[in-house]
Amino acid sequence: MNSQPPAPIGVAVVGAGYWGPNLVRNFQGSSAFHLRWLCDLDVERAQRVLGDYSTVRVSADLDEVLADPDVHAVAIATPAGTHLPVAMAALRAGKHVLVEKPLAATYAEGLELVEEAGRRGLTLMCDHTYCYTPAVLRIRQLLADGELGELHFLDSVRINLGLVQRDIDVIWDLAPHDLSILDFVLPPSVRPIAVAAHGADGIGAGRACVAYLTLQLSNGAIAHIHVNWLSPVKVRTAIIGGSKRTLVWDDLNPSQRLSLYDRGVDVASPEELEDEQRRDILVSYRSGDMVAPALTEREALRTMVDEYARAITTGTPALTDGRSGLRVLEILQAASRSLAEGGTMIKLDERHMA
Amino acid sequence: MNSQPPAPIGVAVVGAGYWGPNLVRNFQGSSAFHLRWLCDLDVERAQRVLGDYSTVRVSADLDEVLADPDVHAVAIATPAGTHLPVAMAALRAGKHVLVEKPLAATYAEGLELVEEAGRRGLTLMCDHTYCYTPAVLRIRQLLADGELGELHFLDSVRINLGLVQRDIDVIWDLAPHDLSILDFVLPPSVRPIAVAAHGADGIGAGRACVAYLTLQLSNGAIAHIHVNWLSPVKVRTAIIGGSKRTLVWDDLNPSQRLSLYDRGVDVASPEELEDEQRRDILVSYRSGDMVAPALTEREALRTMVDEYARAITTGTPALTDGRSGLRVLEILQAASRSLAEGGTMIKLDERHMA
Amino acid sequence: MNSQPPAPIGVAVVGAGYWGPNLVRNFQGSSAFHLRWLCDLDVERAQRVLGDYSTVRVSADLDEVLADPDVHAVAIATPAGTHLPVAMAALRAGKHVLVEKPLAATYAEGLELVEEAGRRGLTLMCDHTYCYTPAVLRIRQLLADGELGELHFLDSVRINLGLVQRDIDVIWDLAPHDLSILDFVLPPSVRPIAVAAHGADGIGAGRACVAYLTLQLSNGAIAHIHVNWLSPVKVRTAIIGGSKRTLVWDDLNPSQRLSLYDRGVDVASPEELEDEQRRDILVSYRSGDMVAPALTEREALRTMVDEYARAITTGTPALTDGRSGLRVLEILQAASRSLAEGGTMIKLDERHMA
Amino acid sequence: MNSQPPAPIGVAVVGAGYWGPNLVRNFQGSSAFHLRWLCDLDVERAQRVLGDYSTVRVSADLDEVLADPDVHAVAIATPAGTHLPVAMAALRAGKHVLVEKPLAATYAEGLELVEEAGRRGLTLMCDHTYCYTPAVLRIRQLLADGELGELHFLDSVRINLGLVQRDIDVIWDLAPHDLSILDFVLPPSVRPIAVAAHGADGIGAGRACVAYLTLQLSNGAIAHIHVNWLSPVKVRTAIIGGSKRTLVWDDLNPSQRLSLYDRGVDVASPEELEDEQRRDILVSYRSGDMVAPALTEREALRTMVDEYARAITTGTPALTDGRSGLRVLEILQAASRSLAEGGTMIKLDERHMA
Repeated sequence: MNSQPPAPIGVAVVGAGYWGPNLVRNFQGSSAFHLRWLCDLDVERAQRVLGDYSTVRVSADLDEVLADPDVHAVAIATPAGTHLPVAMAALRAGKHVLVEKPLAATYAEGLELVEEAGRRGLTLMCDHTYCYTPAVLRIRQLLADGELGELHFLDSVRINLGLVQRDIDVIWDLAPHDLSILDFVLPPSVRPIAVAAHGADGIGAGRACVAYLTLQLSNGAIAHIHVNWLSPVKVRTAIIGGSKRTLVWDDLNPSQRLSLYDRGVDVASPEELEDEQRRDILVSYRSGDMVAPALTEREALRTMVDEYARAITTGTPALTDGRSGLRVLEILQAASRSLAEGGTMIKLDERHMA
Repeated sequence: MNSQPPAPIGVAVVGAGYWGPNLVRNFQGSSAFHLRWLCDLDVERAQRVLGDYSTVRVSADLDEVLADPDVHAVAIATPAGTHLPVAMAALRAGKHVLVEKPLAATYAEGLELVEEAGRRGLTLMCDHTYCYTPAVLRIRQLLADGELGELHFLDSVRINLGLVQRDIDVIWDLAPHDLSILDFVLPPSVRPIAVAAHGADGIGAGRACVAYLTLQLSNGAIAHIHVNWLSPVKVRTAIIGGSKRTLVWDDLNPSQRLSLYDRGVDVASPEELEDEQRRDILVSYRSGDMVAPALTEREALRTMVDEYARAITTGTPALTDGRSGLRVLEILQAASRSLAEGGTMIKLDERHMA
Repeated sequence: MNSQPPAPIGVAVVGAGYWGPNLVRNFQGSSAFHLRWLCDLDVERAQRVLGDYSTVRVSADLDEVLADPDVHAVAIATPAGTHLPVAMAALRAGKHVLVEKPLAATYAEGLELVEEAGRRGLTLMCDHTYCYTPAVLRIRQLLADGELGELHFLDSVRINLGLVQRDIDVIWDLAPHDLSILDFVLPPSVRPIAVAAHGADGIGAGRACVAYLTLQLSNGAIAHIHVNWLSPVKVRTAIIGGSKRTLVWDDLNPSQRLSLYDRGVDVASPEELEDEQRRDILVSYRSGDMVAPALTEREALRTMVDEYARAITTGTPALTDGRSGLRVLEILQAASRSLAEGGTMIKLDERHMA
Repeated sequence: MNSQPPAPIGVAVVGAGYWGPNLVRNFQGSSAFHLRWLCDLDVERAQRVLGDYSTVRVSADLDEVLADPDVHAVAIATPAGTHLPVAMAALRAGKHVLVEKPLAATYAEGLELVEEAGRRGLTLMCDHTYCYTPAVLRIRQLLADGELGELHFLDSVRINLGLVQRDIDVIWDLAPHDLSILDFVLPPSVRPIAVAAHGADGIGAGRACVAYLTLQLSNGAIAHIHVNWLSPVKVRTAIIGGSKRTLVWDDLNPSQRLSLYDRGVDVASPEELEDEQRRDILVSYRSGDMVAPALTEREALRTMVDEYARAITTGTPALTDGRSGLRVLEILQAASRSLAEGGTMIKLDERHMA
């Protein structure tokens, strides 16, 4: 176990592309960290991200950054294919590591990182940003507190006009969000055990642009994920059905992101009802009260950065540690195999889901 | 071929349960029909449906109704399991037949009806009500006119707090709507060729209360249907993605049921874009104009009743004739088989889909 | 006081135009009434409303209808200018009277009816339909129970593409809905005391097509009503702000018509807050929980018809009796005067608001 | 006329409270400006705004900042009561001036600034931020191009839980947004000529927390503004009705901020329609197509900052110059007088509205 770094923790961000600037901004805004470097092969790009008024240093040389003894932690926002070498170099230099999702390009690569960090007693954290939104943190709490009762189904839709990626399909691009959220909010006793995936290319992109994942959970429940790059409307909604209540999360409705419905259906079969009752029920919209809890708006990345600091300082695993990243990779790989096999249900390896 | 019945066409409604009253009201409102009987084993129920001010006769005896020479057509709104005997009796009595969806309890039973009607030159029509909504009629036209370009994907969600049926699962209860719509709007050159189904019970109902159907279409496109009895929110939305435009149908938004979006995504891969462009696109909601065409509100059942009269009078098949009912049954049966086999993709019988 | 009529109460509907058919349908559906006549100068129109299957009689002769001893009650859905003679004739024939809103064309005419009914001990009821919606009934209860605390403001918007009426302006066409609701839900201790109206014609219709009413209430609160025939979007929303909670009624959102918000603002002035707190509050959407109570869907007219039966049977005033109709007329007349005077605040006559 | 400053233009931001940080961020992001100072009486607050990584200087001394010859322009985000002395000092030091809305605490004070800037040939610009949103820029264009036809009415709602200000009422806090937008989008031939204001305190704040402004426009049209600090729901919607089309701006719906409706109502009176037509129209939601134009998302402040640079560089008035700020102040002052007089319609001074 490394000794604790002095506060604030010196940190370097690697990668000044799409996501890096968000990390830069949030590390700068955190009193727990001191941002020392922004590292990118394209130093001009890095300088543009920092702007004309910054005292943070830029470098194209990762070794230079890792050699700085004032750097105790790094945050990696480079393409997934580079996560293994970059993160491994950082760990070997004794730095704590935060990696953008997915943890690595494959389960095997991710495992190397988890084991290396374990051996060295360093924090390895995966930036599953959505898990740190006020809404998802609340969902996790509601499930943990039994407010929903036993989980029956989870239906997640994440669709919008998207950038058709050149190297990965829509599952690897978008589903890590849903899978990491699922991993985060499920009670410890419930685990995904198998996955099937269907998809279509459609526009001749050479990879799935629309995809559906169906997961069997260990308690008999079902989870379903719809990811789509080709939708003109943006939808980010999840419905989580439990035996007591059902939760609807509409991430694009800031005034009512979470709606908690009292149970709206009974097992009583319709044949036991009179016709008019039956008709009333069918035209009704719902039968129980709904509560929309107030959520304090807070940028998820700010909370994620705080958790990184907490994990480093206490030496305890982050809420979204390397192992959670591995579980997401296990499902992604099984989903890819299912997709290739035309939708076969693929069992997940229990040891990989621990 | 029977001779044309005199106008208005004498009609009898069989079944005074959930759906029958809607048929009664619409036949009464149509000048093409003269409603003569409401037939139900429970005559008090039938009388309640007609109310205290009606001149329409009630009967518990189907034979009595079918023996009435002024009855030229019947409309059957009894449970699916009774469709075969009731409809067959009507056909054998020389009556035109309209059947509530699904056409019959099985493909084989439905086929008997189609063949009997064919032999006798009688109209056999399936009450796929949604096909006659102004929205679906417009969708069909838009696809036929090539306004969407080539079809890429169709995603349909039909969820709400539902009545958990005692005899059928959520697929047989709700998916006939989506499947008949799909059958109705697809251009003739595109056909479903296989289906996979996943589902979950959850509440111990003894049958699937949540289910997902994935259909492979003959042109490589995908269709996906989510049906759910356990959702506290009611959603009836379909997204139909084409090569030129994408259509969103939100049936619960009467002021904007149809939204037609100019293409919002190009195949250009994000690596060709600068970071800031990429970021702009990812935070943008859409990139093309949207048109929401005006739709004249008209009750679908009124249009369906008109189409029944037209088919009877002209001796030509109804838009939703018995064969369309057979195609829906073929898919439902394959979906049930897939569900039982854990989600296997089941090929549809080409001859059944003709 | 007349003796109670035998059950069911024989009723005649006068007027087969826009609203009459709804009354016909609901009286037919009520076991408390027996619908005997539909009376209209145009008997063909009346017959079309009843359809080809009805045993209800039609007549163009009001006297014939009023002479029928089996008719104990009438419901009048003729233009407002005819309410006085038609309703007066009915009262003088000893019939209970229900009148479509507004009660009469002027306060003076309405008063004649109220006094005549009073002298004869007959029920005079105004068909303020909205008051009988499940939502408004609940709002009334919430205010009565003090769930909102003291009333601070009420803001009502009722706009849509409307028919430009030839004889009345948008205030007389639409505001009776809002004013009758206001009259219905206000606690007895709070009364409107003055009104100002602003409006615009715009399209050369010769009368106001857009109008705003501002009412001063006796407790210092404000009520504001926006009515508009020229809006392409339909909005029917009211916000009712109280000292404890605020209620939002969105009549076009059937899944969430009522939303009850915990108080979202404190008098604490922003100068006492730190900048970041202030910024957080300003970007927040709300700070308290929200509850959307379940409402049983029930057609308002059905409940209104029940209330008419109750009032007749018990001899007690209806919830929306003639006096409530008078109070609405007093405000409408004052609003017209204000409009003519360019928006002057016009005091209401206290004796007319009793 | 001053000579043009060298590019980039040296700028100082005065005020590090609520709005200042937004100006700091946008000046830093603009290549047309070089941010040199952030000036605030509380230098610690100013330093917090800049963060730990900035090279921008802070100062509590306005004179020091104005004495810097590299500062050619200032941006003032201090309370309205201080705008006169701060902006006057800047103008007298030869600096171009951007002032947060409202331009000054009174019309008279604003006029002093406009005249001083005029005498010195300096840019005086008012930060009417909303005018620079893509939506408002498009609305302005649509009105200028005659796409809406002649203006009939404008209805603006800006309500939310707000901070109850200690020194100003809700009209002075929120209505400057709506009034500056109105000023910005109105065609040059149409001007407000009178205003009436109604309001209520309710919560004992000592000033209006809910208010309604009604403006008469020179072409007979009406504009109405609802501002409210006490609404639990956030609404920022404007409806702009014209003789050809009607526009709805919903600023909180990022996927459809602007909706342009074909005319949905004709002057044809309902008496000319048959009953069924009339009923159809009344239950219809709209009768024409709707187009929702695509808008490129761009931060309004970025565009505002660009316009400030353009005005300075070219020596021509900014789109929201001092005179537009004066017109807003004239209306605010008249509204305050109307509020004090119980809602009297107050004529605006034509010379002040030029």
